[in-house]
Amino acid sequence: MRHTISILVENKFGVLARVTGLFSGRGFNIDSLNVAPTHEPSLSRITATLKGDEAALNLAIKQVRKLVNVVEVTDFKEGQAVLRELVLVKVKADGKTRSEVMQICEIFRTKIVNVDHTEVIVELVGDSSKVNAFLDLLSPFGILELARTGTLALQR
Amino acid sequence: MRHTISILVENKFGVLARVTGLFSGRGFNIDSLNVAPTHEPSLSRITATLKGDEAALNLAIKQVRKLVNVVEVTDFKEGQAVLRELVLVKVKADGKTRSEVMQICEIFRTKIVNVDHTEVIVELVGDSSKVNAFLDLLSPFGILELARTGTLALQR
Repeated sequence: MRHTISILVENKFGVLARVTGLFSGRGFNIDSLNVAPTHEPSLSRITATLKGDEAALNLAIKQVRKLVNVVEVTDFKEGQAVLRELVLVKVKADGKTRSEVMQICEIFRTKIVNVDHTEVIVELVGDSSKVNAFLDLLSPFGILELARTGTLALQR
Repeated sequence: MRHTISILVENKFGVLARVTGLFSGRGFNIDSLNVAPTHEPSLSRITATLKGDEAALNLAIKQVRKLVNVVEVTDFKEGQAVLRELVLVKVKADGKTRSEVMQICEIFRTKIVNVDHTEVIVELVGDSSKVNAFLDLLSPFGILELARTGTLALQR
């Protein structure tokens, strides 16, 4: 089962390295992670998604709680949080294929942020399933580059 | 000066901990970071923003290039990349203030993703300056919770 974990930390030196080190030291592979300051400049929020054995993960979360500079850890159950991800994708689109690519973009309510003769860059926000469906439809045209933020979560 | 660095890595165990450990070991505080798989399941992309002495940072980037499982490192100059950030923010909004909050949301073309009697959750995408301007306008109403993905970057 995939877990989405939100970790509020003091914005202190090395805290990100300690958190990621703890998970990797216990054998967990972090699927996606993002971290940035909150509205309180002294605090940052880490959102991580990872898979693994339920009991081992609960133990790891307990240990994250004990780390220096960690303020709060939330392991979101399904439906408890708003989950969103941002994706930037560069896809091939020339004179022949551009209108078809733009049609797909419109259906998914994406925003085209850059165009040139042979490619476009598209911005999409959604939950993982929406993002995956969109990328699936684009892939026959040729995805050149892709960057995803990983899941961002906020308690409902 | 703030740097936006894009690091393409093999999706192997512990690579995130090694990258964050290298930066923190050299005294750099990572301002924001996100990581997720790309369209090639064997590769993930890390985007990090950090500040620091120019020469020391160039040296650190050189060493990141040498790390196991690191495929490519790009230090974006201004204007080279599309920069975007996703924010979820929970702000106080009751019967008295909701219409004013929604007006601000409309001006910034945000999306309201959850509403209840006393608060709303808003989703915003933009560059850092847009995000900061929006949060600045919302803060008098009372920001309750906030999660940001940090900057995501894709070469133009």
